[in-house]
Amino acid sequence: MSALDLIKQAKAASVTLGLLTTEQKNEILKTVSVLLTSRSEEILVANHLDLKLAKDSGVSQSLQDRLALSVERIDSLKFALAELINLNDPIGELVRDITRPNGLSIKEVRVPFGLIGAIYEARPNVTIDIAGMAIKTGNAIILRGGSMAENTNKVLVSILKEAFQTNGHNPNAIASVDEYGREGAEVMMKATGLIDVLIPRGSANLIKTVVEESKVPVIQTGDGIVHIFLDATAKLEYALEIVTNAKVQRPSVCNALETLLVHKDAADRLLVPVLEKLAANGVVIRGDQRVRKVFPSALEATEEDWATEYLSLEISVKVVDSFEEAIEHIAQYSTSHTESIITEDAKNAEEFLARVDSAVVMVNASTRFTDGGEFGFGAEVGVSTQKLHARGPMGLPELTSTKWLVRGTGQSRA
Amino acid sequence: MSALDLIKQAKAASVTLGLLTTEQKNEILKTVSVLLTSRSEEILVANHLDLKLAKDSGVSQSLQDRLALSVERIDSLKFALAELINLNDPIGELVRDITRPNGLSIKEVRVPFGLIGAIYEARPNVTIDIAGMAIKTGNAIILRGGSMAENTNKVLVSILKEAFQTNGHNPNAIASVDEYGREGAEVMMKATGLIDVLIPRGSANLIKTVVEESKVPVIQTGDGIVHIFLDATAKLEYALEIVTNAKVQRPSVCNALETLLVHKDAADRLLVPVLEKLAANGVVIRGDQRVRKVFPSALEATEEDWATEYLSLEISVKVVDSFEEAIEHIAQYSTSHTESIITEDAKNAEEFLARVDSAVVMVNASTRFTDGGEFGFGAEVGVSTQKLHARGPMGLPELTSTKWLVRGTGQSRA
Repeated sequence: MSALDLIKQAKAASVTLGLLTTEQKNEILKTVSVLLTSRSEEILVANHLDLKLAKDSGVSQSLQDRLALSVERIDSLKFALAELINLNDPIGELVRDITRPNGLSIKEVRVPFGLIGAIYEARPNVTIDIAGMAIKTGNAIILRGGSMAENTNKVLVSILKEAFQTNGHNPNAIASVDEYGREGAEVMMKATGLIDVLIPRGSANLIKTVVEESKVPVIQTGDGIVHIFLDATAKLEYALEIVTNAKVQRPSVCNALETLLVHKDAADRLLVPVLEKLAANGVVIRGDQRVRKVFPSALEATEEDWATEYLSLEISVKVVDSFEEAIEHIAQYSTSHTESIITEDAKNAEEFLARVDSAVVMVNASTRFTDGGEFGFGAEVGVSTQKLHARGPMGLPELTSTKWLVRGTGQSRA
Repeated sequence: MSALDLIKQAKAASVTLGLLTTEQKNEILKTVSVLLTSRSEEILVANHLDLKLAKDSGVSQSLQDRLALSVERIDSLKFALAELINLNDPIGELVRDITRPNGLSIKEVRVPFGLIGAIYEARPNVTIDIAGMAIKTGNAIILRGGSMAENTNKVLVSILKEAFQTNGHNPNAIASVDEYGREGAEVMMKATGLIDVLIPRGSANLIKTVVEESKVPVIQTGDGIVHIFLDATAKLEYALEIVTNAKVQRPSVCNALETLLVHKDAADRLLVPVLEKLAANGVVIRGDQRVRKVFPSALEATEEDWATEYLSLEISVKVVDSFEEAIEHIAQYSTSHTESIITEDAKNAEEFLARVDSAVVMVNASTRFTDGGEFGFGAEVGVSTQKLHARGPMGLPELTSTKWLVRGTGQSRA
């Protein structure tokens, strides 16, 4: 069977999946959870094989860490599934309800997309994570995981299919194109009319490739050159706490801080304590001339630094002459993910919120809050950095479309 | 100046345009309306030239008709602008409002996309129409109209720019790439990070090309192989009225009927009167064997007919054995625009609404109602046949995105 045939089968299966009740969908999720335990040995053996091959090919420690499953990690997948079962099902929600003067009833209701495609890297937890969200929203799903996780994903997909079958549903609704290698991803990106939306998850490079090559509509996620601006009136206490939290707590994720901008009138007061705290937490600091003058151990920041998402314990720091210059720097270098201002000036706070064109704009809060869980969504598909369909943290409703139901009594148009 | 420079300038101008008040945006629209009168002679002279060139190159009468402007047509553009001024401004609308246990205030508000691109055919009214909607929603816009309308559009774009300038706003927010010919459209389709969304309006071919070639997110509109299914219990009165209205009233538009499916148990009762009424209205009928048996003057429908959007006084007609077969035929041939069932069976009605995967699904109503005006939106960008971002008739809110405003008091993530 070709990759395209798998996709066609999944599309066909999506029709009945979309009509399942919330209870039926939750039953599938419960079965997945049960199977993750009963087939855990099989998962761990396959994962061990993937890990061994990864080590042998000299893959970095951090990639190996993302690839590795354990009993504890399987438990946390089960925990996420349990949370998903408890979340509201967005399908069927009435979005708009119009009655026209001619008596037509026009209702917009939430429906599944149909068939979702997910292209991601060698993180087997994403397989269960995104398939779980697809099931909850009544969407069929085609998966393409990183080739390094192929053996693990094969077991996980077989578990997902078994959960469909056990509950009397068509297992074609979920499938992986991993066995077709890179060609599988290419077929997915060309499957217009079959795949309704493609979600790439992973590195900036992976996402860029999918955005550029896909003929299917894509939701662009991740990719965060995230800024904090310490305004002239910023409280030292807030600056210390928020900057450190945003940079240090989990530097490898997209909502972590990458560039710190400091108003020149606050530089004498804030720069040294803030940078000392960062340095004490192991952060490598790259600053412009004015930063290095007061904090000589900082390395020199180059033009490239302002455009770099470090995803590590590194930060670029710049002193700006004005609020205006901060806004302009952000407009030039931001990836429109998350920006935060630390200020006691209410006017500047509101102007920052209005003028910075990012998915999430904050005042006096850590950029690490840009997250579906922290927004109270319960589950997160990713953080959309595009403006079409979804922006910012995406929860279950972002995995749906709508359709219009028009009920008449013989009306025709005048 | 290159086409890319024009796009960059428009993007830069979008920032301040997005911050204008509703009153400021309405003032621009009023000025456009005034200028359409004061510069009408200039418009008509340019349009006359375009029309002459079109005639000389042997363009069809219907294309010439779409290209032609007149004092009356300019008046109807002004009427549409007046309506637009009266519509609610969606910008600033509060979409979601969350307060978290940690005290964070998280608000999702409606914002402009930023820069919209429109690629369309030689219909100069679209220039004012779509630019007007962009202005009302605070979006900058880059236009690429059909080359046949180049002289007319040049005057119209100059009027739009003058309206910006007269009101003290940056005229770069609106621009046309017509002078760059096909290259202009190509640059638009590659302008990721600059153009936030691209809207093609026009023939199925134009839309297909843009969907396939664009790297920028596209909203796919139009393209309607629209079905009506006469169920076994369909009322003759409804069938006669709705089928005729859907096919005859305006056959050249996307919500017009293309294929009629008739349940075999209703064929004897409905087929002859319905087809006779269509024929009396000048409709050419192409039917399957069972249709031709009872209505011998029908031409033979081929496989190709089921997949054809006639956009003219032609219709394909098929007798189906069951409700199920109707659903399957629609799933195979529909472009997911609009489908309607005529039935007195409430269960079939609801099942049709649930199972047909189209932007608009109707019961006992004419498919011609799939229209922003008929839905009460006041203005229409087009009818989206994709599932991402917008589905069905698109009004002003569909020309917007949202952004998240997070207000804290020093919170950092645990």
